[in-house]
Amino acid sequence: MTPRISVITLGVTDLVRSRRFYIDGLGWKASSTSDEHVVFIDLGGIVLGLYPRDLLAKDATLVPGTGFGGVTLAQNMKSKAEVDAALRDAVEAGATLLKPAADTFWGGYSGYFADPDGHPWEVAFNPFWGLDEAGRVLLPG
Amino acid sequence: MTPRISVITLGVTDLVRSRRFYIDGLGWKASSTSDEHVVFIDLGGIVLGLYPRDLLAKDATLVPGTGFGGVTLAQNMKSKAEVDAALRDAVEAGATLLKPAADTFWGGYSGYFADPDGHPWEVAFNPFWGLDEAGRVLLPG
Repeated sequence: MTPRISVITLGVTDLVRSRRFYIDGLGWKASSTSDEHVVFIDLGGIVLGLYPRDLLAKDATLVPGTGFGGVTLAQNMKSKAEVDAALRDAVEAGATLLKPAADTFWGGYSGYFADPDGHPWEVAFNPFWGLDEAGRVLLPG
Repeated sequence: MTPRISVITLGVTDLVRSRRFYIDGLGWKASSTSDEHVVFIDLGGIVLGLYPRDLLAKDATLVPGTGFGGVTLAQNMKSKAEVDAALRDAVEAGATLLKPAADTFWGGYSGYFADPDGHPWEVAFNPFWGLDEAGRVLLPG
């Protein structure tokens, strides 16, 4: 199987609220393929989908669980100052600050916010991994 | 905040088992930055991380939940035949087939497998979204 990911879909309980956060709040752009049932956002060749949590579970033949589901998303930044600014932007857009930015045990700097459904996003500066001009991670081979 | 994602981390209960599935089974490559506590896999400028679920929850200041957490990952393919082949490969590598591939209500073709921790992956053919040469989704604007 090719090492690739195309879509990350977050189950949401209120699509209007999620749209307000990701589109109006963070300023991300909803694709024209979005409608009142689903939102698709281009994250640079990777698609973030927002879809009702119960329908998403049903599509995957699963039963919705409770609490943290064991998946975190992260956006890496080019400096500590960019981490601070992004966390501030997210909170202004309506996110909940889970963890203020601080130096980490692995030698980086990061904080976490939760989106309106509690999905955790880390915002991190990792001095060991570069980012190319398009913002893609240059992971050592 | 820039529309970008850098890392997706899956909480796992047995890193050796996860490594056996993703690295030995699917044939994905562990970055040299991986060690006995964490595995990083380059998915084309996006990093898939595998990390103990309890430590991941702790890092995000959350309590581990139960069941489906409301996040699905998807890999899009260029044909129905590629979907069938990828699902077969995943099951051979030790995945659980959640949903055999079939035509979908939205006009595509997809199936789901679960990784050893139950994280659901959809494998899909979406005739409305192209893929560039690097396999990145060409989402309509």
